[in-house]
Amino acid sequence: MNRITSLFDIQYPIIQGGMIWCSGWELASAVSNAGGLGLIGGGSMDPDTFRHHIRKAKEATQRPFGVNLPLIYPHIQDMVNVVIEEEVKIVFTSAGSPKKYTSFFKEHGIKVAHVIANVKFALKCEEAEVDAIVAEGFEAGGHNGFEETTTMTLIPLVRRAVKSPLIAAGGIGSGGAMLAAMALGAEGVQIGSRFAASEESSAHHSFKQKIIDSKDGDTKLTLRKVIPVRLIKNDFFYKVEDLESKGATAEDLKNLLGRGRARKGMFEGDTVKGELEIGQVSALIDEIKPTRAIVNEIMEEFESVKKNLQDIHFLKKDRG
Amino acid sequence: MNRITSLFDIQYPIIQGGMIWCSGWELASAVSNAGGLGLIGGGSMDPDTFRHHIRKAKEATQRPFGVNLPLIYPHIQDMVNVVIEEEVKIVFTSAGSPKKYTSFFKEHGIKVAHVIANVKFALKCEEAEVDAIVAEGFEAGGHNGFEETTTMTLIPLVRRAVKSPLIAAGGIGSGGAMLAAMALGAEGVQIGSRFAASEESSAHHSFKQKIIDSKDGDTKLTLRKVIPVRLIKNDFFYKVEDLESKGATAEDLKNLLGRGRARKGMFEGDTVKGELEIGQVSALIDEIKPTRAIVNEIMEEFESVKKNLQDIHFLKKDRG
Repeated sequence: MNRITSLFDIQYPIIQGGMIWCSGWELASAVSNAGGLGLIGGGSMDPDTFRHHIRKAKEATQRPFGVNLPLIYPHIQDMVNVVIEEEVKIVFTSAGSPKKYTSFFKEHGIKVAHVIANVKFALKCEEAEVDAIVAEGFEAGGHNGFEETTTMTLIPLVRRAVKSPLIAAGGIGSGGAMLAAMALGAEGVQIGSRFAASEESSAHHSFKQKIIDSKDGDTKLTLRKVIPVRLIKNDFFYKVEDLESKGATAEDLKNLLGRGRARKGMFEGDTVKGELEIGQVSALIDEIKPTRAIVNEIMEEFESVKKNLQDIHFLKKDRG
Repeated sequence: MNRITSLFDIQYPIIQGGMIWCSGWELASAVSNAGGLGLIGGGSMDPDTFRHHIRKAKEATQRPFGVNLPLIYPHIQDMVNVVIEEEVKIVFTSAGSPKKYTSFFKEHGIKVAHVIANVKFALKCEEAEVDAIVAEGFEAGGHNGFEETTTMTLIPLVRRAVKSPLIAAGGIGSGGAMLAAMALGAEGVQIGSRFAASEESSAHHSFKQKIIDSKDGDTKLTLRKVIPVRLIKNDFFYKVEDLESKGATAEDLKNLLGRGRARKGMFEGDTVKGELEIGQVSALIDEIKPTRAIVNEIMEEFESVKKNLQDIHFLKKDRG
């Protein structure tokens, strides 16, 4: 038990990141049923689809689950209305100001966590009185901070700056990494990539296969000047890099490359021309597994690494 | 005790990174006297200066110390000759192939560690039969890998790929981060930035003050296409960024900006026009301290965080 498991009423402080095109009701309910907190990724859903997934998740699990809402979503108010109407109890917001919806959600009895990548926004989260902060490092997949601060440095920085319950994200896909995040000051972890390659993930099999095949150096942050995003280096990635080096804006890129590239890559399985958002930790992922097995393995490794560390001693001794 | 403390015959598995302009005999011997392993940074020394520092370190400590040699050093053979003539017992090599000097050094009874930033070079290290591998993440100061793999993901990747004793570097300046590195599979840590801002560091006071003043986002990797290096964002940094964006080569940059910029910044204290190499962890460093106090604080925090983690339990329970 700690503040994160108490806050969300879950067994393990493992949050499944709400990812576009990967985390529908099947993944979210599977994670919740395995003892973690599943999140439905609202970012790639229209409001009706979003409502459908929430209703299906309610049927599929008796345990708490939540949703992720990127605040840059074009019709965000429609999504917020769905959350209220469907009586969702937990909302993770990202990509925007934590001040925008936190008090509104809390007035409706909803627990709110917000995703940040720097100390400045962690402080804004605390001012907005969020229930928990997700601090996401540079190694994470998808959209990312301009500061490029890694999980190893970001977690202690945020821990020092705020008192709120703290969830670490970025580079975490195993029990050892979960323990590392806790050693750095986090009280829970948000895991994306590892669950993107689960059986219950709604990602296309070809994208899951790409995750499994990835080695170190196969993902890279791009669009650093526009809106940083970590992608697998494929044909689409190199086109983006080329256009950005020529000074393209986000709007230019949409016009030049066409919209819907993330859907094409992650959901429809075009791993050449599609946009493939995944974290560096994909290099450590070698097998598509059932969600329950992933959660169990993480917790078993967490306990065994914790036990092994306990046996390491560096005693002071006088060596003259 | 573990493989790293046994290998180098030290109390604590704390290696002080051999940094240009910061780590002369005073810092290296202070770290060794405090129970870690001090390294004289050969990269910014001519062979005579290097010899002088080795001799001074021998006088200043009875404990093991070593040297760092970047293999791209222009007159590397002269430096190697000094190592042999002065009977240095431990050499950390970096910025080159581990196959170049490892067997030569080992024939002379010298222990060799090599610094890498990806799995490919970790495997080369093992083939070259180095005694230990330093895996350095993206958050580290100074020169850096092209893959941009962070410590959080690099350490488990290297741990999985090789059996050699493994030292983690990048983002580590505290006992919590040291414990995190060990949870990820490292057996020791190499710490640079924290020691650069020690009393015994030979860095200019103005550079030390810059380290202390740094916040998150104040360092950034630049020269990504030429030879990636993490610097504090100052006037020099922005000039480099501007020139690189115009397609400058490493040679162009030297010609355009003039040589000796690292000396100017880090040793002579010109924090505007000089090159300031430091890690992201500088954002967590707030005070110039004596080396012994730094080492003691790291070990005390290591033990206390380890103890606190031991008290966290997430027991399985049937919730129906």
